[in-house]
Amino acid sequence: MADPIEFYFDFSSPYGYLAAQKIDDIGAKHGRGVAWKPFLLGAVFKTTRSEPLLGVPMKGDYARIDLPRAARLMGVPFTLPNPFPFMSVAACRAFYWLSEREPETARALAKAVFHAAFGEGRDMSAAAAVLELAGGLGVDPVALGAALQDQAVKDRLRAEVDQGIDRGVCGSPFFFVDGEPFWGHDRLDHIDRWLETGGW
Amino acid sequence: MADPIEFYFDFSSPYGYLAAQKIDDIGAKHGRGVAWKPFLLGAVFKTTRSEPLLGVPMKGDYARIDLPRAARLMGVPFTLPNPFPFMSVAACRAFYWLSEREPETARALAKAVFHAAFGEGRDMSAAAAVLELAGGLGVDPVALGAALQDQAVKDRLRAEVDQGIDRGVCGSPFFFVDGEPFWGHDRLDHIDRWLETGGW
Repeated sequence: MADPIEFYFDFSSPYGYLAAQKIDDIGAKHGRGVAWKPFLLGAVFKTTRSEPLLGVPMKGDYARIDLPRAARLMGVPFTLPNPFPFMSVAACRAFYWLSEREPETARALAKAVFHAAFGEGRDMSAAAAVLELAGGLGVDPVALGAALQDQAVKDRLRAEVDQGIDRGVCGSPFFFVDGEPFWGHDRLDHIDRWLETGGW
Repeated sequence: MADPIEFYFDFSSPYGYLAAQKIDDIGAKHGRGVAWKPFLLGAVFKTTRSEPLLGVPMKGDYARIDLPRAARLMGVPFTLPNPFPFMSVAACRAFYWLSEREPETARALAKAVFHAAFGEGRDMSAAAAVLELAGGLGVDPVALGAALQDQAVKDRLRAEVDQGIDRGVCGSPFFFVDGEPFWGHDRLDHIDRWLETGGW
């Protein structure tokens, strides 16, 4: 099987949420898996002199129109969690700890976190909120709770963030298809075409 | 005839250049004209705490991949002019002066400026460069040269920039379809759909 599509995202990224609704299907259409790679956009913002979109004058107002409109077009629910943006460290750590044990459950947790945050508007910043979702997927909350404080798990997330920055991941969602970078949920059509044609 | 699509852009915006290749066709498909509205993105950057994309760490590197790739997919030539970004005041003033006299020639000049800048990589910041292109379209270079220093023409451009900011035009290209805002050449598909369906 060909290499998976790499899918970088921040759990607190609304456009990442939208992309998460479609990227697996696009991969499957072309016989590709998708490697989900949650990371922390805050570290990128320092390098790119950026800030969370919703707080930027003018751009934030526009995004509050564009996001629900794009979601309606995709037929997916959309709401902004409160507070927003939220710290996604706990969700990221839970994902990477699980991904080494039960990869399918890790991906199910990622989808559940996105749905809780942007489908239902729940605050997913607290470890307790992540543990509750994971428990619903059959994950042992005691073991996961301990993992969230495990230095090796912290280091794994840090390494993923550093690697993303080294590779030029400048926003969320961000994708690599056989090394070719694509930024934004509005590049999903380019990704689909790239996989179809092998590039242009 | 229904109201035209309003198309805001900075002549120094590469994604504005890409959008300019398609927006008239999208309008025509749905029986809509397009009101071209060049403006100065620098004024917006002050409000949005932004800076020209190509100069932003990481994002600039990505854009240098994304722009020519998007242009190849559209089948249009693409190169970055040097220097970049360039001051587009002269081109904007020429456009608005012409638009009150020969609207079709004004639009032809806009297309010629974009093509010279991003199709051929020419520096279009100087008034002389704009006058030369306009001369090729049959415009009197003496009258146009005087207009570029006319206070009324300066005021017209200033008014367009101020109005754009008041309306939330936070980037280039930016569109309004019956008042509905769309930002980015990657929203052309949404615009096409919006015109098809009357909104969703």
